[in-house]
Amino acid sequence: MISTENTAILLIHCPDKQGILATVTDFITINKGNIIYLDQWVNKEEEQFFMRVEWSLDKFEIPREKIEEYFTTLIANRLQMKFSLYFKDQQPRMAIFVSKMSHCLYDMLARHASGEWKVEIPVIISNHQDLAPVAKNFGIEFHCFPITKDNKLEQEAKEIALLKQYQVDFVVLARYMQVLSTGFVHQFKNAVINIHHSFLPAFIGAKPYHAAHARGVKLIGATSHYVTEDLDEGPIIEQEVAHITHKDTVETLVLKGQDLEKIVLSRGVGKHIERKILAYNNRTVVFD
Amino acid sequence: MISTENTAILLIHCPDKQGILATVTDFITINKGNIIYLDQWVNKEEEQFFMRVEWSLDKFEIPREKIEEYFTTLIANRLQMKFSLYFKDQQPRMAIFVSKMSHCLYDMLARHASGEWKVEIPVIISNHQDLAPVAKNFGIEFHCFPITKDNKLEQEAKEIALLKQYQVDFVVLARYMQVLSTGFVHQFKNAVINIHHSFLPAFIGAKPYHAAHARGVKLIGATSHYVTEDLDEGPIIEQEVAHITHKDTVETLVLKGQDLEKIVLSRGVGKHIERKILAYNNRTVVFD
Amino acid sequence: MISTENTAILLIHCPDKQGILATVTDFITINKGNIIYLDQWVNKEEEQFFMRVEWSLDKFEIPREKIEEYFTTLIANRLQMKFSLYFKDQQPRMAIFVSKMSHCLYDMLARHASGEWKVEIPVIISNHQDLAPVAKNFGIEFHCFPITKDNKLEQEAKEIALLKQYQVDFVVLARYMQVLSTGFVHQFKNAVINIHHSFLPAFIGAKPYHAAHARGVKLIGATSHYVTEDLDEGPIIEQEVAHITHKDTVETLVLKGQDLEKIVLSRGVGKHIERKILAYNNRTVVFD
Amino acid sequence: MISTENTAILLIHCPDKQGILATVTDFITINKGNIIYLDQWVNKEEEQFFMRVEWSLDKFEIPREKIEEYFTTLIANRLQMKFSLYFKDQQPRMAIFVSKMSHCLYDMLARHASGEWKVEIPVIISNHQDLAPVAKNFGIEFHCFPITKDNKLEQEAKEIALLKQYQVDFVVLARYMQVLSTGFVHQFKNAVINIHHSFLPAFIGAKPYHAAHARGVKLIGATSHYVTEDLDEGPIIEQEVAHITHKDTVETLVLKGQDLEKIVLSRGVGKHIERKILAYNNRTVVFD
Repeated sequence: MISTENTAILLIHCPDKQGILATVTDFITINKGNIIYLDQWVNKEEEQFFMRVEWSLDKFEIPREKIEEYFTTLIANRLQMKFSLYFKDQQPRMAIFVSKMSHCLYDMLARHASGEWKVEIPVIISNHQDLAPVAKNFGIEFHCFPITKDNKLEQEAKEIALLKQYQVDFVVLARYMQVLSTGFVHQFKNAVINIHHSFLPAFIGAKPYHAAHARGVKLIGATSHYVTEDLDEGPIIEQEVAHITHKDTVETLVLKGQDLEKIVLSRGVGKHIERKILAYNNRTVVFD
Repeated sequence: MISTENTAILLIHCPDKQGILATVTDFITINKGNIIYLDQWVNKEEEQFFMRVEWSLDKFEIPREKIEEYFTTLIANRLQMKFSLYFKDQQPRMAIFVSKMSHCLYDMLARHASGEWKVEIPVIISNHQDLAPVAKNFGIEFHCFPITKDNKLEQEAKEIALLKQYQVDFVVLARYMQVLSTGFVHQFKNAVINIHHSFLPAFIGAKPYHAAHARGVKLIGATSHYVTEDLDEGPIIEQEVAHITHKDTVETLVLKGQDLEKIVLSRGVGKHIERKILAYNNRTVVFD
Repeated sequence: MISTENTAILLIHCPDKQGILATVTDFITINKGNIIYLDQWVNKEEEQFFMRVEWSLDKFEIPREKIEEYFTTLIANRLQMKFSLYFKDQQPRMAIFVSKMSHCLYDMLARHASGEWKVEIPVIISNHQDLAPVAKNFGIEFHCFPITKDNKLEQEAKEIALLKQYQVDFVVLARYMQVLSTGFVHQFKNAVINIHHSFLPAFIGAKPYHAAHARGVKLIGATSHYVTEDLDEGPIIEQEVAHITHKDTVETLVLKGQDLEKIVLSRGVGKHIERKILAYNNRTVVFD
Repeated sequence: MISTENTAILLIHCPDKQGILATVTDFITINKGNIIYLDQWVNKEEEQFFMRVEWSLDKFEIPREKIEEYFTTLIANRLQMKFSLYFKDQQPRMAIFVSKMSHCLYDMLARHASGEWKVEIPVIISNHQDLAPVAKNFGIEFHCFPITKDNKLEQEAKEIALLKQYQVDFVVLARYMQVLSTGFVHQFKNAVINIHHSFLPAFIGAKPYHAAHARGVKLIGATSHYVTEDLDEGPIIEQEVAHITHKDTVETLVLKGQDLEKIVLSRGVGKHIERKILAYNNRTVVFD
């Protein structure tokens, strides 16, 4: 059941203790918030508590601009919580980076256009002009920053300025064929989602379909993950594979792989938009 | 339709040329062999031809003990073919190597006992005594050769002698926790099938479930492959994966993985028993 | 992490209200129970609350024989809860019904023998003698009750008497080729698990592989479900499918299907053994 | 390896006999056609032979406009063959029918726009205006024919006239929410591809996601198939499923299902474009 009323969403991560769950749900229900989603998980090995809770603001007695302060003071500080607070009526703002391949881009723009995704897409950035017409057809700003060995940091600085100007919350690399610098990544921690065209950690780096074909594997895969400064080593969000046979060539792997890539990337981005992912310790908690 | 009559099976590999298919099928049909299975594949990149053909011997005019000679003389030599000839009424003979885990062993013994597999299993070999009772219950000889750093080659020599005594055609490593020596592997080229508990080439080596958990992957896998002298690098036969979540621990990965391992190993072994696999160039052609 | 200490497990189902979760967790933590598993789900459409919670009894202050009474009085009555209380050290007792096919039987006995399943299997019942040797090899009592048109209720009465004598908690139909009478089913509500060899509701009834082949589907499936008086209509626990092609015959579908059947049945039975299934309204809640 | 040279493609279906394969391949190679794809399958139960062969026309000695005549005279008539002859440089022409949902439409238009599919899409037809802007953005003609109880045959007549005017070879129903009349279907035999949003034969008819939710299944599916006069009963091309849980609502099933629908439809359409499907006896042979 899709609620149309406004809601608050809390993503919580803290050391585990008995009673956290009751404390948080009490905070909400005592203040007349009607909980419409609750999921929690305890990592018993590392004694870490994770929770996502969403509640209706209709009768909630704490004003929305005060919730963060109250929650921090009354609960989060005491329990050493890291938390993020979101409101459903504030849609996240996403930028898409592309190079020349269009399959992931089309898949995301179609979800946006059909209303499947509650997200704003103010800008598409590329190092090539090829996909400018796609952006235009979907009515989205397109900016091209060609990258060479010599101008990468300079161009990235312009990109970052543009992202700030457009108030972008997170970035999706939709088969963007450039490695972001460490500086860029640090400015968007757990806020750059990439699609890698293999089932990581297999076939790290460039040309994974060629490597898969050479190794003679019987399945290919795709992985969506948050970008960290270590290439292809960030927290994994989603993975999927498809069976292949000896008959497949690198060319057919590429085509079959594109279907994996777009589905795996869009699933990951969809979860991020719904604020259902918590990254910690180079892994992710992905709520249902 | 399962035929009860005796058949001959040819597995062929040679450089590609126009007309090979017609040449081979003519050889069979002119001599009154009724073809009941034919599959072929041409690797266009490497210009290699692969074929599996099976025909009824009921009215075949070349005596079975002469087929190899005739085929070699009339066809194979001329076309630089490598080929293997099998007869359906000669069941392959398989040895199983185990250590302490029983899941793959039970799965294979159940297939054998129920008649699903047309194979002889004269002997089970282990480096531990633990699974001797299982072998006994299924009425199969069990021999234990404990392996230490110092006695490996010596014990392997005894194992090989035993395999020869039992006229074993191929060996299945069913979670056998020892690395075979190069000498052993060379004596059973493309005739030792191993199950590795990851989707290779990810997590090569020991403890892949621990490594998968540490990396935070969203799927685990299993791979059956022929053993070569390079550990976990041999031609892959079958692979399968299962989805996991952040909730999984190493313990639950191990349990979920066991279901993958036994299915992936048994599928690979089943294909080998049916003479449907051709290994070349560190890859496999697996016919349907 | 597998705990070795004894635990209590509560499966709860009641009308949804704010605060149930806090009430239940408070009951446990105030009495010094250390919660080691908690999962809950609210069906928002039907306003139903479901929960599974497990806690260590080590320091729990309510004696185990009093927990049910206390929980009923203090919580369940007030919140109109249906609940089941289990203790980890009381293993469920399971009977297996078979006919002539052995693949599901072997798979379950292997899990039992290896210690994967914490369950007692005191008896195997069949309408044929064929699998008596399998039961014997695994050291389990075997009883044969041949069924004819005329003697079904009479034989079932003997079976039920035997199940009571062996204090059986639940029954698994492992490709048992007889339909249980309504009377039998009523005595074991949500306690008879069957495997149906199709992806229900497709191909209800007998010979689903023949029907699948005739229809030309591109996948086959298997479904484990609780048995109700309506044949193949009970609450579904697990389902899985495998891809097939035009090349498959009924015979190859049967073989491929057997691998699905045993995995899907064993997954369902495993979840039942772990007390992770709640059936309601002809559906199941299956906790992770 | 994708060849750029022009090729001829033969799809053949005939009663099985020894020697057909050699006869056909001889016809091609004797006339200096270089075979670049060959796959064949014999349905042993029904004694039917199926084949797809593709060869380079570069040095082929029979002029392309004479191939059909020669093949008919020399081979097809004698062996009672049904066959279809295609040339790679003649791209098939496809019309898309839609209603209001855009996910399948976008997926196909993106494949067309990126060059993945070698197909012409001259026209999109709908019973609603909603998706006209999508067609416009991709530069494709859009025609709207609103359907009521009273005007269906009349509107279909106009649609058929339009399809003929655009020389359309086949039609794709991309979640088109109208049942085509028998008359329409007869004019496009094995040339109308539909996507049904369930794993047929389960949940035939309208609202399959509602039915799946009500039944409590643990997987949902999608099926692409050729349309025949019996609703949802035509030859199946592709099927795929996704796992779901008790947590899914009809709304989440619809969203998860859309990803299945677009992939399953596009896979089926892709195979049709490549001339890799042979329909017979209400089933399909789908070559790799």
